[in-house]
Amino acid sequence: MIKYPNGQKYEPVNIAKRTSKKSKEDLSISASNRGMNLEEDINISNEWYKEQAIALVTKRPTPINIVKVDYSKGARITDAYFEKQSTTDYNGVYKGKYLDFEAKNTKSKTSFPLSNIEAHQIEHLKHVLHHGGIAFFIIQFQLLNEVYLLDASFVIEYYEHGERKSIPYDVFKKDGILIKQGYNPRLFYIDAVESKYFKK
Amino acid sequence: MIKYPNGQKYEPVNIAKRTSKKSKEDLSISASNRGMNLEEDINISNEWYKEQAIALVTKRPTPINIVKVDYSKGARITDAYFEKQSTTDYNGVYKGKYLDFEAKNTKSKTSFPLSNIEAHQIEHLKHVLHHGGIAFFIIQFQLLNEVYLLDASFVIEYYEHGERKSIPYDVFKKDGILIKQGYNPRLFYIDAVESKYFKK
Repeated sequence: MIKYPNGQKYEPVNIAKRTSKKSKEDLSISASNRGMNLEEDINISNEWYKEQAIALVTKRPTPINIVKVDYSKGARITDAYFEKQSTTDYNGVYKGKYLDFEAKNTKSKTSFPLSNIEAHQIEHLKHVLHHGGIAFFIIQFQLLNEVYLLDASFVIEYYEHGERKSIPYDVFKKDGILIKQGYNPRLFYIDAVESKYFKK
Repeated sequence: MIKYPNGQKYEPVNIAKRTSKKSKEDLSISASNRGMNLEEDINISNEWYKEQAIALVTKRPTPINIVKVDYSKGARITDAYFEKQSTTDYNGVYKGKYLDFEAKNTKSKTSFPLSNIEAHQIEHLKHVLHHGGIAFFIIQFQLLNEVYLLDASFVIEYYEHGERKSIPYDVFKKDGILIKQGYNPRLFYIDAVESKYFKK
């Protein structure tokens, strides 16, 4: 059991209530749309995994290049622009091992297009694999309401040597792990990590 | 040997040249001031460790809350403010294991004051330890020109149960690992990680 700095005991938290300002009605709508916002689903799942002391995964903040700060207003940023993430969006720790992944969704039912994966993300994941880290993608087929974990090695292979600029859906069916969806966590992706990388 | 996406071979890079726009004169000045800017030293060391394929450690970007974006200027941020980092500054992977650390410096010669460590950073590091990750602090005693790796457990202990709000220098001498300083990398902190956590 994890000890908290202030000595308080762990108390289950209604994550939906805490992270959302939506009314009950809105919540039921958002429940029916579950899986439609992949990033939010992962973030909320990460909170749950953290509170349950199952895994610790954090989202890297979007890097921003700051041009001008107005200190008269208490360090208010008045001019800045977005920078491209040179890594993936998520990393963390599970059973001592380093996890690193990128999440993407597609409206295609037949393949995942590689067009929205950047070359530096592929390079980053190759480094992670080289150092013995666990590297993967979480890919959502939005219209099929299916989310898969696919080891980064497959994505790297298709990115570098694939004839088509996409990964066929069949590859996910065959080599990916279908991620169970639910309420808490919304995405049971650590179960997928466990079965892919830890079970013998 | 790590393979790069475009098939190019690894080529040593003059990091000082690449990451700095300083003239030769400036470089010699900054060399004499080596160790004066801890964060920069760690960032440059991380680049070197990455290029040498020894470890992969990245700095989390500072989280920024964006209030207003001007899309007429190509997504220029015109109003935003800094948020507190809810984690530590650095994490990464070495020999498959998850690393997580915070870097701080002090001008004191006798102790490291805990005043600039946040409660949520302590909580974060407790989570890391719970999950079997490697968690530590890199502490620079600026006036002594000494940099130490100290396991997070010591800092957590002093933070929560210490009588004084500081960690005596003697604790670093006894339980910390003195980090060798040089040119490439500037801080041999992975050597310290190796000797503390990997050597039997």
